Order: sequence, then structure tokens, then C-alpha cells
Amino acid sequence: MAAPRENLAINGNRLWDSLMEMAKIGPGIAGGNNRQTLTDEDAKGRELFRKWCEMAGCEMGVDSLGNMFAERKGTDPNALPVYVGSHLDTQPTGGKYDGVLGVLGGLEIMRTLNDFDIRTKHPIVVVNWTNEEGTRFAPAMLASGVFAGVHERQWAENRVDANGRRFGDELDRIGWRGDEEVGVRKMRAFFELHIEQGPILEAEGCDIGVVTHGQGLSWMQITVTGKDAHTGSTPMPMRRNAGLAMARILELVDEIALSNAPDAVGAAGHIDVYPNSRNVIPGKVVFTVDFRSPDKGVLHDMVKKMRRGARDICADMGCEVDFEIAGGFDPVEFDEGCVNAIRNAAERLGYSHRDIVSGAGHDACWINQVAPTAMIMCPCVDGLSHNEAEEITAEWATSGANVLFHAVLDTAKIIE
Amino acid sequence: MAAPRENLAINGNRLWDSLMEMAKIGPGIAGGNNRQTLTDEDAKGRELFRKWCEMAGCEMGVDSLGNMFAERKGTDPNALPVYVGSHLDTQPTGGKYDGVLGVLGGLEIMRTLNDFDIRTKHPIVVVNWTNEEGTRFAPAMLASGVFAGVHERQWAENRVDANGRRFGDELDRIGWRGDEEVGVRKMRAFFELHIEQGPILEAEGCDIGVVTHGQGLSWMQITVTGKDAHTGSTPMPMRRNAGLAMARILELVDEIALSNAPDAVGAAGHIDVYPNSRNVIPGKVVFTVDFRSPDKGVLHDMVKKMRRGARDICADMGCEVDFEIAGGFDPVEFDEGCVNAIRNAAERLGYSHRDIVSGAGHDACWINQVAPTAMIMCPCVDGLSHNEAEEITAEWATSGANVLFHAVLDTAKIIE
Repeated sequence: MAAPRENLAINGNRLWDSLMEMAKIGPGIAGGNNRQTLTDEDAKGRELFRKWCEMAGCEMGVDSLGNMFAERKGTDPNALPVYVGSHLDTQPTGGKYDGVLGVLGGLEIMRTLNDFDIRTKHPIVVVNWTNEEGTRFAPAMLASGVFAGVHERQWAENRVDANGRRFGDELDRIGWRGDEEVGVRKMRAFFELHIEQGPILEAEGCDIGVVTHGQGLSWMQITVTGKDAHTGSTPMPMRRNAGLAMARILELVDEIALSNAPDAVGAAGHIDVYPNSRNVIPGKVVFTVDFRSPDKGVLHDMVKKMRRGARDICADMGCEVDFEIAGGFDPVEFDEGCVNAIRNAAERLGYSHRDIVSGAGHDACWINQVAPTAMIMCPCVDGLSHNEAEEITAEWATSGANVLFHAVLDTAKIIE
Repeated sequence: MAAPRENLAINGNRLWDSLMEMAKIGPGIAGGNNRQTLTDEDAKGRELFRKWCEMAGCEMGVDSLGNMFAERKGTDPNALPVYVGSHLDTQPTGGKYDGVLGVLGGLEIMRTLNDFDIRTKHPIVVVNWTNEEGTRFAPAMLASGVFAGVHERQWAENRVDANGRRFGDELDRIGWRGDEEVGVRKMRAFFELHIEQGPILEAEGCDIGVVTHGQGLSWMQITVTGKDAHTGSTPMPMRRNAGLAMARILELVDEIALSNAPDAVGAAGHIDVYPNSRNVIPGKVVFTVDFRSPDKGVLHDMVKKMRRGARDICADMGCEVDFEIAGGFDPVEFDEGCVNAIRNAAERLGYSHRDIVSGAGHDACWINQVAPTAMIMCPCVDGLSHNEAEEITAEWATSGANVLFHAVLDTAKIIE
């Protein structure tokens, strides 16, 4: 096996220029991007990406959900390709880097390989997964989910947006339905570079997050039913205050998450109070508890404790409580070989790094079910993402892409 | 002073029939009423009340805010009248008794005095106050507030409803602007009979509430500002969770109210969470804490403790907190003589009774500032009010009106 060349580095300026060029397509209203999946803007972004890939000598394949695969040939026709990539679609008020860095970081690897005229045994493929964000067509990570066999293709095509438009129809309309069957490609490995979307790396001044796990998630929608009553004329002992019961459950959620430190987290982001009037004691509160852990047993245990505790709280207060599963997925444990390739690359290149758990979902979480997979994270300012103010530095992008480059070289094998 | 005649009683069937007849005007969609102030339905209700008053031999005066005063003459031209009454307007989805019982209970007194051909030294006046509910034109108790000098008349006339229509214009439109100056009438006393709008009397099987105080109220709108952050990728120690801070403040509000048992109450009925998304830790929560107490010092102290505690809670959690006064009024201590007249009447008539604090605001709370005033409450089913399902029994209404009758006789002095 060829040793990676430690002095090889990607061109950080070129990567940054490409990020800024792509960001001109589907500009937001506050410095970010609105390039939602299967819109005209998405089509323009795809077109630019195809042009750049072809200029880099890659051959573009497109499957029947619009997933794009730009391949740089390897020397061994029988060797499985090494895949890199992420997604070019954005949130309605999204940033310039979420997803895009992983795709254009992959493109930059191709360009660098060309610069140095490096051949690899294994082909290298840069992929742009369709509809990672899921805001226009739920759920998120839709096309990578079909690729991994998590969803049916026809089901995905029948997803409709808020205006009643079908995913499949919109894919045809923008002209990006390919003829390749979804999920037929076999991968030697898949590496996804992504911004952290959290505050840890920046706070610790750490260059690289080596993503070992993806958090498992449980969304439990809780309905507490008490009794609407006048805030003035109802004595304290006669109240069945659903708002106060909700408050006590939030405190319990916090306690449970803290008792599973440091990786587990828990909170309620969504809380609706009924009738939500200043002088009516809440008769009903509907809220969603979000628990996450990289450990399936811990996740299951947190939810169980919360349900039991919430029942006790509500029984004490004369309230009813109902639970409804509103979403969830199992924790992801990324491939040890891929994780090591990333950690070793960061180490060899002299970047500060730490193991990290991805709190958000990513295409890599699904692809991990069908190929050896791991992720690289770089810091983002203030942990901010899904926001037009999302920001990173060119240095962070460069470091991340260099680690991606060397992990890929290590896996795709340089022909000396 | 003439002793009240204990065997005199109002006609409960006639009172009930009148309540049912009035309820036909502005029927709701669920058995209650929608007879909002200064609507065509309000005008029809007023017309029926005027007709009934005139049939009972009363003379109707109307002031320039539409307050209606039906007077039954006394024998002494210099004696100040005894006033009784409440309001005929309802909530958009209101009940058949809130306010109406106090007005038609007053009318029933006139009819009973006629039945028995009783003359009183002091005139007796039944009043219908305009816009007690305040849902169409805020604030509540608007015209009685002007009568008591709490608001300016012109300010009241300039209140606009949700469709931009002025109070003064609507008063003219329905033809109920009188030429009497608001607030010129002097009162010997004012008695208001009202349903409890709370659960205490029914729960205790008690016929009559002798209202000694009106709760003072403080509405404090609290804005807790933390930081929007991803529920998955933000470690617990790095969160500034405004939702959790709100939960802790709600618990504190409950503790503070309970520590001032039994009369003080506290809760938050209104809670808005931002951005209110399942996977975003709340960056901002706006909610209103409602504290009430019949004791001004206690009310003040509760608010002070809550502000101090909320500041500590938020400082501990890295959140900001702001307070804005969203409403309030001082506790009301009703006139001792009027309260005694009610308590003595209930006692003499053999009704079970208890002193009670009014949790809600009433016209009597303003009139108490300019005349000796007290209130009588009768039970309502399940404490339910401001709801079409509001219900009372004919017996409860009869008991309340009988106590009102005897308190009035005691005050207006029967001429033997």
C-alpha cells in the first residue's frame, strides 16, 4: 500500500472561490442561500457543479432520484470507488456551507489530484445527494435514504411540498432525472466532510472533528391535559394546571439528559399552550421532547424514565398525559477503518482533532448502512447553522478538505 | 329604620323566565350567547330590558356612554338611590348568566316590590353598564370605569374593535347614546349580584358568597432570551435554554403563590416559545405571569420575589430576562356596611354563606371607588364561565336574588 504523501495539500483559495461562486446561485436575503431542492436554483447549482466536474475530467452519472456521481477513474477496473460528498441543496434561509463544503471539498480533491497528476488504484466519486434538507419535501436525507434501502423510491417520488407538488414531478421539471437505478453503486468507502453545526470545535479551538458516531434520536410528542380555568377565581388547590405539569416535565428531561453526560442531550423546542390566554390556566399543553444519545440503550432508557416520570408528575397534579412518537432513529456507529483513516490523516497533517458525535442527521448516517462510512467536521462560527448567518473561515474549510483528501488518498491508494 | 320583612321573597320562576327570554337575543352556537357590546344584538337586549323596566313602572335614564339606569321612585326626594345591576353584554362565546343575572335580578326586585306594593324611602335604580366584557373594545369594565373616573370618556369613545370601528361610532349607530353626563349620579350604595365564575361555592355546597374583596392583579410579561441552538449538536453545558428557564420560573411562581395561601394565586396562562421548532433549543420565550391577592402588600411582595427569583434563575442559565407590566389593578376592599347588609340578609334568610374574594374584575370593583359597594355571588356549575356551557340552577339564581333583594330593602328602607 502506498503511503500518503504528507506534503500534498489541496488549494484552499480555489476551494473558497468555488464556495463563493456556488453561493451566488439562489442567494438568500441576509447573506446566505435559498437553494431548496428541485427548484430552478437547485438546477442551476447542479449545472455549475456538473460543469466543474467535467472540467476536472470526471464522468457524471445521475440516478433516477437526481443523485449526481462524478467519477475520476482509477487504475484498477475491478476496484470499488471511494466516494466523497454531501449535498448542494439548502434550507429556505440556509447558509453557504451546510452540505456545499462536502461536495465542493470533494471536487477540490479531484482538482488537486489533477494538479499533481496523481493516479489512484480505486476510482474516486464525488456525490451530490438530492434533498438532504427535507424542508421542501420531508423527510430529510431522502434520496440517500432510498440509496441505502431505508425508503422505497416510489414513496420518495410521491412526497409533496407545501404547494402540493410531487417530488418526482419536480425532478422531471428541472430535468435532473437520470436513468441509473438508485442504490446499485457499490462503495469501498464513503467520506462526508461537513460543518459541525454545533459549538464544540470552535469553543475548544480544535481544527478537526473525527466523527465516530451519529446521535440516535427520539422525538416524543407529549400532550398534557388539565382543565381550562380562570386564573383569578380558581383556588390553587383546585387547579389542574397543564402548563405547570409541562414545566415539571421539562425539568425532568433536563435532569435525565444531564445524568447521561457528556454525550446525551435532551430538551423541548416545540411547546404549544392552549388556550394561551393571560387569564386562563392552561387546559392543554402539547410539546415535543427531543432526546439524543450515541448509545441505543441509553436513548431507550432516557425515554422510559421520562415517560414514567411524566406520568407521576401528571397523576400528582390531576392531569392526563399522552405520548406519541413523533420521530426517531437509532444511533449510528461509523466504520472503524474509515474513522481511523480520518483520525490518522488529521494526526499526520498536524491538525488538532478530537472525536466527536454528530448531533444532526447527515446523508452519511444512511450510507453507513450500505458502505464503510465516516465523517469529518470542521468548526463553524458560534455553532450557527440552518441560518443565513452561518459562517466558517477559509482556514477551517482548508483543514477539513485536507483531512478529507488524505483520508481518501489513504483509502483509494496512490499509484506510485 | 324599618326592619326587613323576612317572609318577602322574589319570584324565582319569573326571574328564570326572564333570563331565558333575554338569552334568545344573540344566541351562541352552543347553547350560550354572543351578544357583544354595541352590536345589533346588544341593542335588542337593551330594548327588551327597557320595555321590562317601563312595564315595571321605572323611568329609564341613559348616559352618553349608553349606561342604562331604570329608577323606581322613593318617598324621600332628597334620599340617594340604592343601585343594583351588572351588564347585559356577553363574551363572543359567552354564557347566559355572566352579568345578565345581576341586571335581571335587579329588575326582579322592582317587580317584587310592585307585587307587594312596597314603597322605599330611597329610590332604587337598576343599571346595565356598557361593555363590561371588554373583548370587543378593550379594556373590560370600560363604561363603569369612566363613571368612576378611572378613564376619560373621550378615551373610551376612541377605543376601536378588531375591525377598526370606534366605540363612540358604534354607540351612535345602535342608537343608545343618551344625553346624561357620565358619572354625575350619586349613590347611597351599589350592589352587584354575579355568578362566581369559580368552583368554590359549588364544591362546598354553599348558597351565597359574600364578596368582601376583589383580588388585586399583576400581569407581568416576561421575556427570557437564551440562544437558539440545535437540539442535537449543542452539548448540555453550552446551552442557554430559554424554555427551561421559563419552566423554572413557572415552578417559582407556583411556590410563591402557595406560600401566600389561601387567597393568593399565581400562574402563567400565556406562553409563546421561539422559534418553536422541534429541533431548536428555544432562544426566546415570552410569557405572562398572573398573580392575584386581595392584599396589596402581598401582591407587591409576590411580584418582587418572582422578579428577583427569575433574575437568579436566568443568570444561572446564561439567559437574559426582561419584565414588562402588562396589566394590573389594586385589590378592592368592599364597603363594610354593604358587605354586612349582604351577610345579614343571607343569614336571616337561612342560606348557607361564606365570605369570598372575587378573582375576576367586575363593574362593582370600579364603582367601589365612588360609592359604598359590595357583591353577592351565587355558585356556577364546575366554575365554568366565559364559555357557552356556563350553567347555574334556578335555585341558585333565586337565592342570590333574594339576598340582593333583602340587602337592598335593608339599605333603601321600607316605608311601613
